[in-house]
Amino acid sequence: MNSKLLSRRQLSLLLFEWLDTEALLGRPRYQSHTRENLEVILATCERMATELFAPHAKSSDEHEPRLEGGQVVLIPEIQQALRAFGEAGLVAAGHDEEIGGMQLPMVVEKAGFAWFLAANVATASYPLLTIGASNLLARYGSQSQIEHYLKPMLEGRFFGTMCLSEEHAGSSLGDLTTRAEPQADGSYRLFGNKMWISGGEHELAENIVHLVLAKIPGGPPGSKGISLFVVPRFLVNEQGGLAERNDVSLVGLNHKMGYRGTVNTLLAFGDGRFLPGSAAGAVGYLVGEAHQGLTCMFQMMNEARITVGLGAACLGMTGFLHALDYARNRPQGRRLGERNQESAQVPIIEHADVRRMLLAQKAYAEGALALNLYCARLVDEERTAEEAHVREESSLLLSLLTPIAKSWPSEWCLEGNSLAIQVHGGYGYTRDYPVERMYRDNRLNAIHEGTHGIQALDLLGRKVTMKGGAALMLLSQRIQRTVGKASAAPALMAWGQALADKVAALGSVTAALFADGDVKAALANATLYLQALGHIVLAWTWLELALVATREGRAEEDEAFYRGELAACRYFFGYELPKVDAWLAVLTARDSTTLEMEDAWF
Amino acid sequence: MNSKLLSRRQLSLLLFEWLDTEALLGRPRYQSHTRENLEVILATCERMATELFAPHAKSSDEHEPRLEGGQVVLIPEIQQALRAFGEAGLVAAGHDEEIGGMQLPMVVEKAGFAWFLAANVATASYPLLTIGASNLLARYGSQSQIEHYLKPMLEGRFFGTMCLSEEHAGSSLGDLTTRAEPQADGSYRLFGNKMWISGGEHELAENIVHLVLAKIPGGPPGSKGISLFVVPRFLVNEQGGLAERNDVSLVGLNHKMGYRGTVNTLLAFGDGRFLPGSAAGAVGYLVGEAHQGLTCMFQMMNEARITVGLGAACLGMTGFLHALDYARNRPQGRRLGERNQESAQVPIIEHADVRRMLLAQKAYAEGALALNLYCARLVDEERTAEEAHVREESSLLLSLLTPIAKSWPSEWCLEGNSLAIQVHGGYGYTRDYPVERMYRDNRLNAIHEGTHGIQALDLLGRKVTMKGGAALMLLSQRIQRTVGKASAAPALMAWGQALADKVAALGSVTAALFADGDVKAALANATLYLQALGHIVLAWTWLELALVATREGRAEEDEAFYRGELAACRYFFGYELPKVDAWLAVLTARDSTTLEMEDAWF
Repeated sequence: MNSKLLSRRQLSLLLFEWLDTEALLGRPRYQSHTRENLEVILATCERMATELFAPHAKSSDEHEPRLEGGQVVLIPEIQQALRAFGEAGLVAAGHDEEIGGMQLPMVVEKAGFAWFLAANVATASYPLLTIGASNLLARYGSQSQIEHYLKPMLEGRFFGTMCLSEEHAGSSLGDLTTRAEPQADGSYRLFGNKMWISGGEHELAENIVHLVLAKIPGGPPGSKGISLFVVPRFLVNEQGGLAERNDVSLVGLNHKMGYRGTVNTLLAFGDGRFLPGSAAGAVGYLVGEAHQGLTCMFQMMNEARITVGLGAACLGMTGFLHALDYARNRPQGRRLGERNQESAQVPIIEHADVRRMLLAQKAYAEGALALNLYCARLVDEERTAEEAHVREESSLLLSLLTPIAKSWPSEWCLEGNSLAIQVHGGYGYTRDYPVERMYRDNRLNAIHEGTHGIQALDLLGRKVTMKGGAALMLLSQRIQRTVGKASAAPALMAWGQALADKVAALGSVTAALFADGDVKAALANATLYLQALGHIVLAWTWLELALVATREGRAEEDEAFYRGELAACRYFFGYELPKVDAWLAVLTARDSTTLEMEDAWF
Repeated sequence: MNSKLLSRRQLSLLLFEWLDTEALLGRPRYQSHTRENLEVILATCERMATELFAPHAKSSDEHEPRLEGGQVVLIPEIQQALRAFGEAGLVAAGHDEEIGGMQLPMVVEKAGFAWFLAANVATASYPLLTIGASNLLARYGSQSQIEHYLKPMLEGRFFGTMCLSEEHAGSSLGDLTTRAEPQADGSYRLFGNKMWISGGEHELAENIVHLVLAKIPGGPPGSKGISLFVVPRFLVNEQGGLAERNDVSLVGLNHKMGYRGTVNTLLAFGDGRFLPGSAAGAVGYLVGEAHQGLTCMFQMMNEARITVGLGAACLGMTGFLHALDYARNRPQGRRLGERNQESAQVPIIEHADVRRMLLAQKAYAEGALALNLYCARLVDEERTAEEAHVREESSLLLSLLTPIAKSWPSEWCLEGNSLAIQVHGGYGYTRDYPVERMYRDNRLNAIHEGTHGIQALDLLGRKVTMKGGAALMLLSQRIQRTVGKASAAPALMAWGQALADKVAALGSVTAALFADGDVKAALANATLYLQALGHIVLAWTWLELALVATREGRAEEDEAFYRGELAACRYFFGYELPKVDAWLAVLTARDSTTLEMEDAWF
């Protein structure tokens, strides 16, 4: 039976036919792995996701977290699933063997995690956050922080959170007001409230390790004065045992449209509810250097952004596979031109418009998954490539692609989920089918870890312009290389040319935008730039996949699968790429409608 | 205080400055009305919607209909609101005075109803269906049906439904299997199940009048053998009193993503649960001629399609006004280039991308509302214009515009609701703010009363080609007339030219599509045609509004309002109209990707 979570065959194409994951195994860091053992790990992820995560996705959506006697109550299946995840060592999948990790390539770790995201994005959010926090501590944590917090996280005993936003400071982190008072023993005491904290309070783990942004009094103003702290729910003693409850308390739960299984909280640090009698404040420990909190947190944030994009892609994939299954099995109507009204109805997959909706979903979701795994592969290069220039280029490219890898799937795989509902007709709008939940879940992804608007400013205002435009130039070269290969393949030549034209148009627009130094005007339509470059990057991704699908010597039994990849690529070039012109038109015109609009005119 | 439901000022522009509603008052049918009394009615609608419909929108979403002892239980506010609606005579707003109606122009009736749709689309669905059913009975019902069913509906005592779909026959109505057995007394007995019946069972009214499609045995196959019946929940005796319960029973409730306050049911006709001992079957009465059921029902359906579009537009409007209010009051971040990190945060409406999202919402929602009221105005012309050719042209144009008036708002005002969430950031994703509910509600509108795909086939396969393309030609002429006026106004000239170019391109594409007689190929991308023509029609609508907004002699105190209209028009031409090319590109290429795609390749 085929999974309705992800396409195993397509994942295998991405990892082993396109991204050449096997090549990584020759490198020192990954030498204990073989292709066989990677496949065992992936199969384990699929099995656990199918058996432990997917079955309670509906139930945890229906029974959202609630408070009972001051405790957060979740349905028990969440804890069972997460225990199994932790016990399988999956939190530690990417970590060094010397601290108990598997030292897996990032691209494999993410591919394995994709199964959990597709099965149940809300339950998968707990390990998602814990893995992010663990990577941050592995890089910036002190030896004691590694022993006392990181290792129990890797064992699945402690969970992690990221505490950035405050009620008045979301996108504008520099305005946060949580303060951290230095203590004589080198620790800090924190005071303040944090909003939107996923996994902020629950009984799922022995302890919760909050990574908190706060300001040390007397530091620089704005975002330059932000530091990062470990603030555990329970203090940890010298021996690593749990001591008293730290002064972190739950103020309230947020009630969301989707992602309902992920408890989302407003937390108070140092409001005196816990730790009474002691000096007030929540005990925290500085991570890394003082006032370098944003730099540290951005490592976690960049990783989280790619995982958010991956989650959006996985929701797109599972929505697509559910719609495909429905379309194959739902009889309705007849072929155009069939005049016998008493002939049997045909499955709706026979209708051109249903096939259009399925192809769109396939193109969006598989393309988004490919892009996000490509980004993970860049992390592996950044970390383990032998030559310095490869590491540098990978880093540069990753940094340009991150806002796209986050935003594009959040926008287009949401659209894919909408199409999945549409394929189901009225049934898709009911809670009897899972596609409406996927649509509700996926709507969050354009918001958390930086909205589209924030990603767009990051892309155009920072990534495109950094180092004299080096990242965009590098991307152009990479695309040009793909176009070159396509020009040698008669079936792909026209797509290559179409892509090259869009890249050229984007290049001219980019140069013109910054020609007169008016940054405000240049950035006014940054979101459309993000959309245009996003579609270009996805067209590039699809052309890469088409090159794989037309490679000589491919197995005959896979012919139908490769035809499907080519059809999705054809769909993308025929139906999607032309949209780029509409976005570029606004940028070319340097349209100032939004700048000139006045509040009073609305 | 400004309403957050609709913009009173914009509604007034549409009715009295653009659609010249006052001109209707000179016609015999509407002569008992004055502008003043129309404004009183509109103000009453606004007040009732604000005071009785809006306050329970959140609660009825949270407490969806449930079964208790076999009865459907709704929150009591729904009945209170609907009683007031009925007592105010609003079900009868458009009906003849001689049967108790107000004989209001359709455009005013719809504008008044818009307040209810914006306030609470789920509660408004009950009168929406009742009004549709009442119009159908007024046109096709027998004298006895008018006395026994229509009049109590107009008094607000009976509610109506439309029973079309069955579990295996949704879009494909010809496949329905409910049968109606003729009886000696001229009545019928119905047997079968009906799916997706909104308002199908409840205790809100004295009686429910189901309008049911069924087949009389021995009739023609497929959709040509469908007849229409009145099937009341309670039988009505000669004196108009309620008699025994008819054999219509509730099989189950559907649980939806949104529109939760509208009870949606699966009904059984003639399963023997009620009327035991009598000959089995639900008692029904033929409406109109036998086998003409679809023609009758299409009157109701066409009206319902425009009201669905209107509802989508109203959800877009209220979402926009909530987002606008939030954007004006939420401080976050600083203006680009502000280097003082300790300066106060600015309201997010100061950010260009937030203004873009607000302008998009305004352009989508106000434009959609305008289009739907324009369609209602065409109904008034169709019904009351003095000259026959005006009536015929109005009818022709209405028939072409109906699929667009239904689909375009369902697609783009949903996008508007998504942007309303985005403007609210994380808060918009919570149930503490109403925008997530609007988004969930609006997602239905692309499905019920014919999906996008069905509307697209109706548009391209029927409306565009009927009468040798006369409807499209007429629309082109109307647009050309607007372009002509715009060419005389320096501020609008360029928009007029841009619109004329798109109309010309669409014309060429249309001719080429049907040039070789391959209907299957011509219709393969009908949905993209619907989108392209939709954007063209909306650009035309905006150009019309811009002409009004730049008219000589407008009041100075309205300057800001008119500037806003022009800005929305500018947004539409700058940011939206270019998308037409992307859709036309697929049609021009006669892209056959979806036709050639095979099931096995997915």
